[in-house]
Amino acid sequence: MTARKGLLERLREGPVIGDGGFVFQLEKRGYVKAGPWTPEASVTHTDAVRSLHRDFLRAGSDVMQAFTFYATEDKLVNRGNKAGETIGVDKINRASSKLAREVAAEGDALTLGGISQCPSYLSGMSKDDVKAEYRKQIKVFVEEEMDFLLCEYFEHIEEMEWAIETCKETDKVVAASMCIGPEGDMHGVSAAECAVRMARAGADVVGVNCHFDPFVSLEALKKMKEGLEAAGLKPFLMCQPLAYHTPDAGKQGFIDLPEFPFGLEARICTRWDMHKYAREAYELGVRYIGGCCGFEPYHIRAVAEELAKERGRFPPGSDMHDAWGKGLEMHTKPWVRARANREYWEKLMPASGRPYCSSMSCPDNWGVTQGDSVLKQQATSTSSEEIAKLKAMQDQKKA
Amino acid sequence: MTARKGLLERLREGPVIGDGGFVFQLEKRGYVKAGPWTPEASVTHTDAVRSLHRDFLRAGSDVMQAFTFYATEDKLVNRGNKAGETIGVDKINRASSKLAREVAAEGDALTLGGISQCPSYLSGMSKDDVKAEYRKQIKVFVEEEMDFLLCEYFEHIEEMEWAIETCKETDKVVAASMCIGPEGDMHGVSAAECAVRMARAGADVVGVNCHFDPFVSLEALKKMKEGLEAAGLKPFLMCQPLAYHTPDAGKQGFIDLPEFPFGLEARICTRWDMHKYAREAYELGVRYIGGCCGFEPYHIRAVAEELAKERGRFPPGSDMHDAWGKGLEMHTKPWVRARANREYWEKLMPASGRPYCSSMSCPDNWGVTQGDSVLKQQATSTSSEEIAKLKAMQDQKKA
Amino acid sequence: MTARKGLLERLREGPVIGDGGFVFQLEKRGYVKAGPWTPEASVTHTDAVRSLHRDFLRAGSDVMQAFTFYATEDKLVNRGNKAGETIGVDKINRASSKLAREVAAEGDALTLGGISQCPSYLSGMSKDDVKAEYRKQIKVFVEEEMDFLLCEYFEHIEEMEWAIETCKETDKVVAASMCIGPEGDMHGVSAAECAVRMARAGADVVGVNCHFDPFVSLEALKKMKEGLEAAGLKPFLMCQPLAYHTPDAGKQGFIDLPEFPFGLEARICTRWDMHKYAREAYELGVRYIGGCCGFEPYHIRAVAEELAKERGRFPPGSDMHDAWGKGLEMHTKPWVRARANREYWEKLMPASGRPYCSSMSCPDNWGVTQGDSVLKQQATSTSSEEIAKLKAMQDQKKA
Amino acid sequence: MTARKGLLERLREGPVIGDGGFVFQLEKRGYVKAGPWTPEASVTHTDAVRSLHRDFLRAGSDVMQAFTFYATEDKLVNRGNKAGETIGVDKINRASSKLAREVAAEGDALTLGGISQCPSYLSGMSKDDVKAEYRKQIKVFVEEEMDFLLCEYFEHIEEMEWAIETCKETDKVVAASMCIGPEGDMHGVSAAECAVRMARAGADVVGVNCHFDPFVSLEALKKMKEGLEAAGLKPFLMCQPLAYHTPDAGKQGFIDLPEFPFGLEARICTRWDMHKYAREAYELGVRYIGGCCGFEPYHIRAVAEELAKERGRFPPGSDMHDAWGKGLEMHTKPWVRARANREYWEKLMPASGRPYCSSMSCPDNWGVTQGDSVLKQQATSTSSEEIAKLKAMQDQKKA
Repeated sequence: MTARKGLLERLREGPVIGDGGFVFQLEKRGYVKAGPWTPEASVTHTDAVRSLHRDFLRAGSDVMQAFTFYATEDKLVNRGNKAGETIGVDKINRASSKLAREVAAEGDALTLGGISQCPSYLSGMSKDDVKAEYRKQIKVFVEEEMDFLLCEYFEHIEEMEWAIETCKETDKVVAASMCIGPEGDMHGVSAAECAVRMARAGADVVGVNCHFDPFVSLEALKKMKEGLEAAGLKPFLMCQPLAYHTPDAGKQGFIDLPEFPFGLEARICTRWDMHKYAREAYELGVRYIGGCCGFEPYHIRAVAEELAKERGRFPPGSDMHDAWGKGLEMHTKPWVRARANREYWEKLMPASGRPYCSSMSCPDNWGVTQGDSVLKQQATSTSSEEIAKLKAMQDQKKA
Repeated sequence: MTARKGLLERLREGPVIGDGGFVFQLEKRGYVKAGPWTPEASVTHTDAVRSLHRDFLRAGSDVMQAFTFYATEDKLVNRGNKAGETIGVDKINRASSKLAREVAAEGDALTLGGISQCPSYLSGMSKDDVKAEYRKQIKVFVEEEMDFLLCEYFEHIEEMEWAIETCKETDKVVAASMCIGPEGDMHGVSAAECAVRMARAGADVVGVNCHFDPFVSLEALKKMKEGLEAAGLKPFLMCQPLAYHTPDAGKQGFIDLPEFPFGLEARICTRWDMHKYAREAYELGVRYIGGCCGFEPYHIRAVAEELAKERGRFPPGSDMHDAWGKGLEMHTKPWVRARANREYWEKLMPASGRPYCSSMSCPDNWGVTQGDSVLKQQATSTSSEEIAKLKAMQDQKKA
Repeated sequence: MTARKGLLERLREGPVIGDGGFVFQLEKRGYVKAGPWTPEASVTHTDAVRSLHRDFLRAGSDVMQAFTFYATEDKLVNRGNKAGETIGVDKINRASSKLAREVAAEGDALTLGGISQCPSYLSGMSKDDVKAEYRKQIKVFVEEEMDFLLCEYFEHIEEMEWAIETCKETDKVVAASMCIGPEGDMHGVSAAECAVRMARAGADVVGVNCHFDPFVSLEALKKMKEGLEAAGLKPFLMCQPLAYHTPDAGKQGFIDLPEFPFGLEARICTRWDMHKYAREAYELGVRYIGGCCGFEPYHIRAVAEELAKERGRFPPGSDMHDAWGKGLEMHTKPWVRARANREYWEKLMPASGRPYCSSMSCPDNWGVTQGDSVLKQQATSTSSEEIAKLKAMQDQKKA
Repeated sequence: MTARKGLLERLREGPVIGDGGFVFQLEKRGYVKAGPWTPEASVTHTDAVRSLHRDFLRAGSDVMQAFTFYATEDKLVNRGNKAGETIGVDKINRASSKLAREVAAEGDALTLGGISQCPSYLSGMSKDDVKAEYRKQIKVFVEEEMDFLLCEYFEHIEEMEWAIETCKETDKVVAASMCIGPEGDMHGVSAAECAVRMARAGADVVGVNCHFDPFVSLEALKKMKEGLEAAGLKPFLMCQPLAYHTPDAGKQGFIDLPEFPFGLEARICTRWDMHKYAREAYELGVRYIGGCCGFEPYHIRAVAEELAKERGRFPPGSDMHDAWGKGLEMHTKPWVRARANREYWEKLMPASGRPYCSSMSCPDNWGVTQGDSVLKQQATSTSSEEIAKLKAMQDQKKA
């Protein structure tokens, strides 16, 4: 294991391909609950989590990220969640880490332990309290010998800095990505400034993940790159966007879209969108290229195939996927065989089959963030009265 | 195992839930190649096929259909396919049957062996030749003790009758579904007449599968039901449609849509569409309710949840899915918690995020069918000259 | 004047081109009020009505139809309308007839007096009462020497028959068109049967007008033609559809669409749609080809230009309109000059510039018709209580 | 005439309402040819031009702008145009001025003489040459006693400055508006800087017209306002946008959209859009509020009705238009009467009835401007070879 090249060495050599989003894909497969986004699946449905790791490995992922999204202890006991009590933060993070390591060893992949923003910060708790939450996860990652650490899905640069600092208490390589778009963080800090502060806090790799589609995310990356260059900083850049088209999302991204999370199907990117994404990301100088919510194995495979020349290899899964639709040469219908060419798929403007639906949505725009009382953590379940009240607030905002 | 209730007994008691489509889902997971739709995955990627069976079992499927789509011998050697030679029809069908039986035993599911239309028919070969193809598969299904047989995905009622007759050479219960819409089969036979002929040929269960979305398919079912009633026939009805919206597909269904098969994402149905589908199918009197291409485990779960009352149980997978978005009560953002109610999701008209794309497409309209030379089976790969010629024909038709 | 060829003679020689809709165009120019669709504009704003006649004459119309839509006496006193009392049915119809005659004489156009369905019928009044309403208008048309009569915009074949019978009390040629689509009249009579009954009642020309777009209307015409042929009848066919795309309208047409009447802009047909309409109508055998609501002068000009070869002449207005965009050869921008060709405009799929709007709407579906109390005529204005009650009914139907 | 209040006095008192676009509306009525946009209609079709003036006066316009768009002499002889030779710049401008004055006197409207960018500038001719073109028009405006002058539809601030300077050789009030959006002029000068330079060149009123929809135009106005404030300048602001939705237009506006000029129908704004536009313009501080291409009389009426309170009067045409659909209270159908309220129309999201068309288009993006050889003026007609060459260039850019 020690002979394997580390992340930074690989990034220096060429593009590193991340994996796709676990919570959305496992929700569709039936093993994760939307809302709490239950990371305890690594304990309760180990086979399902392992299968998804294998799917991504086969698709070309160079990194097996332990499935630990929202697995801080404060999140595991928030709003009626029982996982913190019945299973516990240590057991979940450890099981996830072991799974990642097991599958990574089946290929030549790196392992990764990730932490995300936590309810304690949104509730306005202290820096020490927030860091304490992270240390519980990081301790496991170190003990389970994850190759590097990632602070991802942060909406506030301040909390991100605390998270990076906590990671830097170890000797691991640290990557950092915020779930922001070109408009910057929720406190009004620009994308460029966020990038500079992530790098200065010690991140070796910086970028964005989640919340926006590949193309909106690359706009944010472009601003980050400009900010870093102006500051004379040179971290690697990473991008792990949604696989959902979000030209209409506001500052807070797809969470604000009315389709989130159970009506996003019509927004799912095609594999051809991902070819375009991979190429544009690479040309912008991004070297850690992966995906987040909505990315399925075939999306990652498309990224790996687009960059096959740069990487000197096709992903293992290309044995069941011919580039640019060439497999259709074996279709029984001649007019489908006629589609077995790159030009056809590059030019296609896919229809939605939904003539009563529009192209864009007006996002919910609550405009509240850290410190607002409505965001405070609470241990008890949300009551039906609270839901009714929130629904009324929402209706009023829409009127 | 003998104590288990058979298909007809179950259908008499209430709705039986089928599974979803294997070829499209396994293609996205990375184990099946689009074009030849390689059923040999049961041999080459056993774990992946088993995982998908388990996902559907957990989602509520009462039937584990062996993954044998397009696994006739003539298909396995068509247009450069090597699977017939290197693996063979017996081995593929047997491995698939065993997998279905293995997972079915983990629940209380029935096993099913299915046959589909074959290139020999399209090429204009004789009834005996076509039946001989089917017998190679059916022999395995009998030896592997599949609970019942299904003739599915037939575009011509004539070939369907041959297939049913071949199945009836065994003593198995036989179900039959054509991949047609309200306009009927490719030779101009109405949907109503197709239903009558399937029933008269001996099918105990008749209906449609694939090629059209749930709502277009139910229109076809309605015509079938009327035809059967007029003829005094009473088979059970089955429906296993696409999970893609296809209001714009022509007579030959989604294969004619320009998005087939690599640009269909924007057409994917939501879980709420499936609630509606399950309710409408049940009210029409359909008792075998499942899905085909595009149906993922969560779509089947939605069908099972909608019919939970009629079936007296929720699917196992509902432990990770609260009805009508109730799990969102645990979301950190208040405006997402406000979506934790049925009315919100029933009313949602999801946007596509694709402002440069239309709602509907003009289908390719080649209008060729059985007997046309361009449909003839050939053992050799399609050449690039042939593709260029087909592409030119397509461009001309579009102009 | 007597030397002019009459309608039937012209129809025998080739296509006769009608005019476009007066109420919608005059509403946009500022001289007609939407709701009562005030035909008294011929008295109060004579110049504006004359100008529109001239625009249509120049565009190629062969017929100047007196602006007498909804000018029965019962309509002029319905729901707070004062025109019946202050001006009177005789004066309005007479002024309109004179204007039509004046402008017709400036070209070689025919004059036409038209009657439409009246509130008395919807209110359930007797045949005699309804006929009496029509006689007041027809008397004026005869005295003002209109060349022929038209019964148009009828939703019920029964009332249409009464109207034709009343017209047949004169010796004028009678044309008849219903505002129905392929689904037939409001009492469930098929389009084919409606056509047969119009012809049998004595109409020399039969067809449809208003309520549906050109292409839906031609579907209705096709059914009418089949019905007439089956019955061995040979009247001329006429079509005067909307210039609004209505693929989503229900049985009652565009009135049911939520955009009616103040939000229809996005549905307006282009001139190229009208070329297509004129060609398809002509090929179906329709010989009286015009328009209704939404048709502006340039739409009629497009019809006249498409049929220029069949008619042996271009309309006068073509001096300011080169066919298929050729005038763009004089545009300053080269990329606009590149659009100066037929292929460009025939292939164009125009975008709406409205990414938050859908392609299709769900029509209001009240399903009430003649005899329903809510449709009864009343002399007094609608009260705000009534509006509130209707709005509540509508909201309930939408929920 | 001398007792009438002048423009600046009126602007100080409250909003002044402009008129709508003559070329597009007269093209649809049949009197102007698209491409050369023939201003000679004032000579050849005097009645039609007069009618449109009256329509706008009745709709609430405070200004009758002489129809002199593109009536410089160099434009009248460009690319095969014969109007310069057969009629002449003096005669056209004089006839148009007289018509404006005639109709203005029927109300209390001001008269306006306008000049626009000319081919000589695009062709790279000298400042003196360009100014000489403008002086030919301005001389007529002075002799015909137009109340004020307007330099409108300029894409380059440099040419605009030359135009303003030429106007300032008279003692007339001068207004100035560029056909630019938030991205600024074709030479890369920002909208803010353009505003400052217009004001410094002597314009009393500055703003934008044409090329973009009301809401994109107001974004440009906002930038202009900020620039002016930063420079300590206080001219009045004016806005005369398109009545076509153009969220997808590039820097050069709707001319680049593939729908220009014969496929723009689906983009036409509703009257409710214009209420919103008028309110937002007023709140931004814009005091000269009118329209350009696509604005029909009812659009201007909507602006006048929205600002009725601020202006202390409704337009004359409101006698045939009840606010917010109230006239529908007189409709025969109850479900249409239910639409007689403001909330209904404010909330309506109108569908296009075009399910095969998208919401947005990719604009042509030739990126050439002043000085480019392809933009040079030429007296001879464009040849078919040139069109073929341009079409090939266009196809290549699209591929």
